[in-house]
Amino acid sequence: MQYIAASIAAGLAALAASYGNGHVISKTLEGMSRQPELSGQLRSTMFIGVGLIEAVPILSIVVSFILMNK
Amino acid sequence: MQYIAASIAAGLAALAASYGNGHVISKTLEGMSRQPELSGQLRSTMFIGVGLIEAVPILSIVVSFILMNK
Amino acid sequence: MQYIAASIAAGLAALAASYGNGHVISKTLEGMSRQPELSGQLRSTMFIGVGLIEAVPILSIVVSFILMNK
Amino acid sequence: MQYIAASIAAGLAALAASYGNGHVISKTLEGMSRQPELSGQLRSTMFIGVGLIEAVPILSIVVSFILMNK
Amino acid sequence: MQYIAASIAAGLAALAASYGNGHVISKTLEGMSRQPELSGQLRSTMFIGVGLIEAVPILSIVVSFILMNK
Amino acid sequence: MQYIAASIAAGLAALAASYGNGHVISKTLEGMSRQPELSGQLRSTMFIGVGLIEAVPILSIVVSFILMNK
Amino acid sequence: MQYIAASIAAGLAALAASYGNGHVISKTLEGMSRQPELSGQLRSTMFIGVGLIEAVPILSIVVSFILMNK
Amino acid sequence: MQYIAASIAAGLAALAASYGNGHVISKTLEGMSRQPELSGQLRSTMFIGVGLIEAVPILSIVVSFILMNK
Amino acid sequence: MQYIAASIAAGLAALAASYGNGHVISKTLEGMSRQPELSGQLRSTMFIGVGLIEAVPILSIVVSFILMNK
Amino acid sequence: MQYIAASIAAGLAALAASYGNGHVISKTLEGMSRQPELSGQLRSTMFIGVGLIEAVPILSIVVSFILMNK
Amino acid sequence: MQYIAASIAAGLAALAASYGNGHVISKTLEGMSRQPELSGQLRSTMFIGVGLIEAVPILSIVVSFILMNK
Amino acid sequence: MQYIAASIAAGLAALAASYGNGHVISKTLEGMSRQPELSGQLRSTMFIGVGLIEAVPILSIVVSFILMNK
Amino acid sequence: MQYIAASIAAGLAALAASYGNGHVISKTLEGMSRQPELSGQLRSTMFIGVGLIEAVPILSIVVSFILMNK
Amino acid sequence: MQYIAASIAAGLAALAASYGNGHVISKTLEGMSRQPELSGQLRSTMFIGVGLIEAVPILSIVVSFILMNK
Repeated sequence: MQYIAASIAAGLAALAASYGNGHVISKTLEGMSRQPELSGQLRSTMFIGVGLIEAVPILSIVVSFILMNK
Repeated sequence: MQYIAASIAAGLAALAASYGNGHVISKTLEGMSRQPELSGQLRSTMFIGVGLIEAVPILSIVVSFILMNK
Repeated sequence: MQYIAASIAAGLAALAASYGNGHVISKTLEGMSRQPELSGQLRSTMFIGVGLIEAVPILSIVVSFILMNK
Repeated sequence: MQYIAASIAAGLAALAASYGNGHVISKTLEGMSRQPELSGQLRSTMFIGVGLIEAVPILSIVVSFILMNK
Repeated sequence: MQYIAASIAAGLAALAASYGNGHVISKTLEGMSRQPELSGQLRSTMFIGVGLIEAVPILSIVVSFILMNK
Repeated sequence: MQYIAASIAAGLAALAASYGNGHVISKTLEGMSRQPELSGQLRSTMFIGVGLIEAVPILSIVVSFILMNK
Repeated sequence: MQYIAASIAAGLAALAASYGNGHVISKTLEGMSRQPELSGQLRSTMFIGVGLIEAVPILSIVVSFILMNK
Repeated sequence: MQYIAASIAAGLAALAASYGNGHVISKTLEGMSRQPELSGQLRSTMFIGVGLIEAVPILSIVVSFILMNK
Repeated sequence: MQYIAASIAAGLAALAASYGNGHVISKTLEGMSRQPELSGQLRSTMFIGVGLIEAVPILSIVVSFILMNK
Repeated sequence: MQYIAASIAAGLAALAASYGNGHVISKTLEGMSRQPELSGQLRSTMFIGVGLIEAVPILSIVVSFILMNK
Repeated sequence: MQYIAASIAAGLAALAASYGNGHVISKTLEGMSRQPELSGQLRSTMFIGVGLIEAVPILSIVVSFILMNK
Repeated sequence: MQYIAASIAAGLAALAASYGNGHVISKTLEGMSRQPELSGQLRSTMFIGVGLIEAVPILSIVVSFILMNK
Repeated sequence: MQYIAASIAAGLAALAASYGNGHVISKTLEGMSRQPELSGQLRSTMFIGVGLIEAVPILSIVVSFILMNK
Repeated sequence: MQYIAASIAAGLAALAASYGNGHVISKTLEGMSRQPELSGQLRSTMFIGVGLIEAVPILSIVVSFILMNK
């Protein structure tokens, strides 16, 4: 039963991180192609954003690894 | 049974945080590429917003960790 | 059985708070990038709104903690 | 069984309140950024609206608390 | 079994009332920010509308309370 | 079993009435804010429409009350 | 078992009638606010339409009442 | 078991007929408010269309009545 | 078991026919209100289209009647 | 069990054929009302398209009839 | 059990082929009504496209027939 | 059990291939009707794209055939 | 049980790869029909993108083949 | 049971990676076809983005491989 639990936690984390990151990076590329002179600033904001988004999914992956070793 | 419960709480928290953060950070990037002179103000509002959004998912992760140790 | 119940309550609360907060903070950022001179007023309304939105999900988190200790 | 019932009632109440409040507060912020001179009137209507919306979800939370004590 | 039934009735009533009220109050705020001189008329129509919308969800809440006492 | 049946009938009736009424009253408010001189005619049509819409959900609520007393 | 059947038939009938009527009456209100001089003709067509739409849901309500008395 | 079958057939028939009729009558009202001089022609086409749409749902209602008497 | 099968086949046929016919007849009404001089040609194409669309749902209704008599 | 299988195959075939045909015939009517001089060519392409679309659903109906006679 | 399997494979194949073909033929009709002089080229590309799309659904129908004879 | 597995793999492969191919071929037809002089280049890119898209669904069909012979 | 697992992994991989590839190749065709002089550069980026997208689905197909041989 | 778990983790990872990568690469192609002189910068940002997106799905694939060897 804990194997199913680990896979649900890992799969939803993957879906969540890809959804959030995909939107943020798409917007960054859209902004860069509109105003190329802001690309440094946009890219640094993108890195901060990706870090903030991946915080909770990484915790969910951690939950998944703990569940597998139980 | 509590393993499944822990994974549902962690997975939904990951989905929720990524959805909320993804929208907020996307809007910040969109605002910055439109009005670069406001980027400091927008970024500070973004940090406040990300903090407010992640409050409840982090609580859900806490629920998940408590459930795993039961 | 109460563990599943606790995780459903916590997970739906996380989804609900992130959905509501994400929309409100996005609109605040959109409004600030359009009319920067209103940013103080918009941000204070945003704090009121986030507080009003998080009232019911926090109650749901409380339900989740009570269920875990039963 | 009543624990699951309590969590369903609390979780759906959280979803419902966040959905309704999120839309109303977003519209208020949109209206304020378009016509700043109406912000007092809009904010007072927003408080009435949030109160009307939260009436039924709070009743659902009450149902959830009653179910937990059965 | 009747506990689950009570929570379904209460939860769907909360969702229904929030959906309907959220749309009506949003439209009222939109109308008020476009034509401020009509705000009295719009707000009185909003109160009638909210009352008409909440009639059936309140009946569903009543069903929920009756089911809990069975 | 009939308790679940009563709650399904009541819950779907609440969803249905709120969906239909929400749309009709929103359109009325939209029409009133566009053409204020037609507000009497629109409001009387709104009352007829709300009455026609609530006919079948009220029948479903009746079904729910009959099922509870079986 | 027939109680669940009766509630499904009644609930879906309520959803169906509200969906169809909601759309038709919304369009009538939209048409009346655009061309007020056609409001009589539109309203009479609306009554015909509401009658035609409610024919099958009323039959479904009849099915529900027959099932309850079996 | 046949009671559930009868309610599914009746409920889906109600949903189907309301969806189809709702769209057709909405379009008729839209066309009449744009070109009032065509209202006779549009209304007669609407009656033909409603008849054609309700053919199969009425057959499904017939299936439902046959199933109830088995 | 075959009663459930008959109702699924009949219900899906009703949904399918109403969806297809609803779209086709709506487009016909839209075309007639734009170009009234083509209404004969459009209506004859509509009859052909409705006939082609209803071919497979009628076969599904036939499947439903055969299943009921097994 | 094979009765359920036959109804699923027939029902999905009906949905599929109605979806595909509905879109194609709608586009044909739209094209005819825009350019009436092409109506012959469009209608002949429509017949080819309807034939190509109905090929696989008819095969699914055949599967359904074979399953009923097993 | 293999009868259900055969009907799932046949039904999904029908849905898939109708979805893909419906989009492609709709686009062909749209292109023909915009540029009638390209109708030959568009129709030949349509035949190639329909052939490419139906390759995998036909394989799924083959899977369905093999499963029925097991 | 492996028959169900084979039909799921085949059915999802059919859905996937039809979805991907339908979008790509539609875009090709749209591009050809806008710029007829590029039709050779677009059609060759379409063939490459269809090949790349069908790679994984064909593998899924292979999985389906292997599962049937187990 | 592992056969179902293999078919789920293969089917979701097919859906995923077709979804991603379909979007990327559609955008490439759209870009080529707008700016034909960039077609070489767009096509090479398309090949890189398709390779990057198919990496994880191919891993999922590998998981499916390993599961079949267990 | 762990086979199902492995396939769920792998399948959701494939869906997630394809969804995220598909959006990012589409935006890159759109940006390149609008501003060809930025293609180097956009493509390097695309590689960073794809790497960031695939981090969590690859972890989910790792979870899948670990689960298969348990």
